[in-house]
Amino acid sequence: MILVVSLNPALDITYRIDVVDWAGVNRPAEVHARPGGKGLNAARVLQALGADVQLIALTGGNTGNEVRSAFSATGIPAVYAEIAADTRRTFSVVDVGRGDTAGFYEAGPPVTASEYARFLEHYAAALAGCSAVLLSGTLPPGLSARTYAELIEIAANAGVPSVLDAEAEALWLATAACPAIVKPNIAELESAVGGPLLRTGDLDGVAEAAAQLRERGAGAVVVTLGADGLIAVTAEGTWVATPKPADGNPTGAGDAAAAALVYGHILGQSWPELLGRTAALGAAAVATPVAGEFRAADYERALATVKVSRWERG
Amino acid sequence: MILVVSLNPALDITYRIDVVDWAGVNRPAEVHARPGGKGLNAARVLQALGADVQLIALTGGNTGNEVRSAFSATGIPAVYAEIAADTRRTFSVVDVGRGDTAGFYEAGPPVTASEYARFLEHYAAALAGCSAVLLSGTLPPGLSARTYAELIEIAANAGVPSVLDAEAEALWLATAACPAIVKPNIAELESAVGGPLLRTGDLDGVAEAAAQLRERGAGAVVVTLGADGLIAVTAEGTWVATPKPADGNPTGAGDAAAAALVYGHILGQSWPELLGRTAALGAAAVATPVAGEFRAADYERALATVKVSRWERG
Repeated sequence: MILVVSLNPALDITYRIDVVDWAGVNRPAEVHARPGGKGLNAARVLQALGADVQLIALTGGNTGNEVRSAFSATGIPAVYAEIAADTRRTFSVVDVGRGDTAGFYEAGPPVTASEYARFLEHYAAALAGCSAVLLSGTLPPGLSARTYAELIEIAANAGVPSVLDAEAEALWLATAACPAIVKPNIAELESAVGGPLLRTGDLDGVAEAAAQLRERGAGAVVVTLGADGLIAVTAEGTWVATPKPADGNPTGAGDAAAAALVYGHILGQSWPELLGRTAALGAAAVATPVAGEFRAADYERALATVKVSRWERG
Repeated sequence: MILVVSLNPALDITYRIDVVDWAGVNRPAEVHARPGGKGLNAARVLQALGADVQLIALTGGNTGNEVRSAFSATGIPAVYAEIAADTRRTFSVVDVGRGDTAGFYEAGPPVTASEYARFLEHYAAALAGCSAVLLSGTLPPGLSARTYAELIEIAANAGVPSVLDAEAEALWLATAACPAIVKPNIAELESAVGGPLLRTGDLDGVAEAAAQLRERGAGAVVVTLGADGLIAVTAEGTWVATPKPADGNPTGAGDAAAAALVYGHILGQSWPELLGRTAALGAAAVATPVAGEFRAADYERALATVKVSRWERG
């Protein structure tokens, strides 16, 4: 069983509009509202991969009710720790004519110390019998930047390895708790170590920053590079995995990659296999318009063409 | 008691953002969610005017729960007819830097015949003892364009006069049911009679179209003209009311005007007084950022300077 932790889930609302009037009134013909946030998306990908998965999330208010009732349709078992404030929304406005998407992401509800303490009780109970935990997404206001570090320590004390998909200080502090894998994208890695890292076509800075996180305690650091795949700094060396580029919606590709990493980790895949599958699943997720979904045929095709090789400093 | 009918209320969500990235991710620092739709805004203005007011609305789903629980804070008595589908949202993005607002208005939930039948029972009961009914806003999908005509007939049979704030075919068909007053703005009047009406500074076309609606059965037709006030075609002739222009947010000014009309009607105000108050309250509503609110001082100031005069064809 893989336990997926979502401390800041969201109700994701998407409007598709032919040509948006950014200074007037628009009447969206297509409205989609679905449970989201990185953890929920990754849980759905894990289910589609055939993994045994359970969700634990903080939810509150009417938006929280909406997230819970919609997520129950997936059939994924879920434990919810209730909070007083409202679960956040995200809005995405797709301008079909211009091909642009504007995203509006609320920060999330304040979480009190006693609400977090109740969550910890549920978390400890849910860890029993799990083979890995995936911690995914931003922290809601009120939770300390040390939260992921603490959750990783609690899992480690229960003998459960962690995979972390986070950013900034929360990622930086969590690496010292020795997660098995951390999976930032470039911007998230930059926000953890400070400063711009990628000069065009030159991965040196990225590899150095990833190595810093590994020195702090992370077992492996897998940095997703968008259409260019990923670079991974591991105990067995540094690797790059490059899929055939896919056209589509990059939202959710990182969640698919996180799912592939935690699943491959518990299956004991070798690094070349694990990283190839991760890059291929990310590319397959791009080809599907909805975050948290991919088509098996796209994944198979991407797997057949992804290239994995050892990386040497340029 | 004034009964306000809202068949398509909304949860109004507003994000204020310094400078919006229309092709990227925005993290709104300010998030406001409040119960809206024209009827709910007008009910709040009526309460602020000191009127005895009751709301009847169709609500459904988690968004409906959110609208009801937030509206209950006003203390305005409300009857809700439950529907299976979700009450709609509206989403507004205020680009503070550019001074623009983009609005995204969902159409609303489908309403079934049996849900509408149950609403009619509540409506008939709520009409008893009312001195006027205000019918306000768009119709949700599934309700016939004859809905407002029918509600006006039912009110008339109970001896209750109606004020209607609607548009397009629903407005056109409703005039034949002889509402006391209909209150379109220019665009709504155009959508009812067809074709563009206002040539710059020339109200002839507007007055003619308003007269058409009166000939069909409306007791009076009050057309709001934005910053220019209003023109009213009544049994006692045609009038214009012109307030001193106000800077601010025009959203909700029409709802304030509708509230002033129904309140002045039951108080038996003369047309010059009623129209002057209506134009002044609309201007005061513009000066307040939130729809459904106005400051008494703004209203008093606007009342002191509004000009009402008989209008002659140019």
